[in-house]
Amino acid sequence: MGSEEVIAKLKEFVASRDWDQFHTQENLAKSISIEAAELLEVFQWGSPSNSEAIKEELADVLTYCFLLANKLGESPERLILEKLELTSAKYPVEKSKGSSVKYDQL
Amino acid sequence: MGSEEVIAKLKEFVASRDWDQFHTQENLAKSISIEAAELLEVFQWGSPSNSEAIKEELADVLTYCFLLANKLGESPERLILEKLELTSAKYPVEKSKGSSVKYDQL
Amino acid sequence: MGSEEVIAKLKEFVASRDWDQFHTQENLAKSISIEAAELLEVFQWGSPSNSEAIKEELADVLTYCFLLANKLGESPERLILEKLELTSAKYPVEKSKGSSVKYDQL
Amino acid sequence: MGSEEVIAKLKEFVASRDWDQFHTQENLAKSISIEAAELLEVFQWGSPSNSEAIKEELADVLTYCFLLANKLGESPERLILEKLELTSAKYPVEKSKGSSVKYDQL
Repeated sequence: MGSEEVIAKLKEFVASRDWDQFHTQENLAKSISIEAAELLEVFQWGSPSNSEAIKEELADVLTYCFLLANKLGESPERLILEKLELTSAKYPVEKSKGSSVKYDQL
Repeated sequence: MGSEEVIAKLKEFVASRDWDQFHTQENLAKSISIEAAELLEVFQWGSPSNSEAIKEELADVLTYCFLLANKLGESPERLILEKLELTSAKYPVEKSKGSSVKYDQL
Repeated sequence: MGSEEVIAKLKEFVASRDWDQFHTQENLAKSISIEAAELLEVFQWGSPSNSEAIKEELADVLTYCFLLANKLGESPERLILEKLELTSAKYPVEKSKGSSVKYDQL
Repeated sequence: MGSEEVIAKLKEFVASRDWDQFHTQENLAKSISIEAAELLEVFQWGSPSNSEAIKEELADVLTYCFLLANKLGESPERLILEKLELTSAKYPVEKSKGSSVKYDQL
């Protein structure tokens, strides 16, 4: 399934609840941070014993990301691939292989 | 394009840099929070004048989300749709229409 | 030194730059999340080799926390102690000793 | 009251529950991000009608910040003041007055 179908279902969910009024770009950005921290909370004191909670919290982050991408008129896939080109240039294989050092310290 | 193709490209990017060693589930969860905050930073003092920075930071959040979904053996689309069913049940249309109140206070 | 003295210096720093206009409660809350993620970034791929970066990023979180406490007319110390009473009641010693389980699952 | 007294009470709270084993520097850094997002959640869809929730969530961020400062052998006040000197140098009054622009774009 492609993201268009998923976004169509998300938009239907939002429209039927009249929630679009709350979904400014800024509120969606805040929501992404909030849900990302709920995902992090699963790992607060170590690794969880099962991955169900991880999946649910990751789903929430993804949901708000897809909604924000849609607000920007972009597909999530295209955003990722365009950024991947920039990141590939910032982290040339020969310099960054096996290293977790940030590009400005390579 | 579907997410499989995007994930294949991300995995190739990661493999060629030998970065998979850093991508534990917990490190990916931390990375999602870190990138989510960089997205939030674009809105720190108000709304930005153009959306280029939003797109780039959103792309980073999405990238780590796709990598974590892949680690969990899940597609991002399926995760979103499965959670959407749970959320739809928690927020019935008749109770939640036009309201931003949390489900446990509906 | 008490926090009053620190807050007085922070207020002077802010006033001389005419930055109070940006410091709404919401913008300070966003700033706390943003700086907290920069602190987390120091631990993104594991523990850092020295603690200088930790101290600097922690200082940024604390700075925005002190500014927000001041906006609310509260001292950071009193906020902590008042919440400590609530948390102590939620986590009785006999139930929570040696356990990282959340209070609603105790 | 000074922060020493507050930290003494926090340490007593932690010791009586045998929670120090969970409080690695990294876990405290994660906890600060998690609590910062709970504070942000109070502002997710706009400003709250009363400040009680803000105070409680801010108290949680402050609590973990004080615990981490203590782990680093530092007082919160000193950390703030030392960073304030660096920040003052990065943002000279004449360049930054009335502007929310980041130092590297001043």
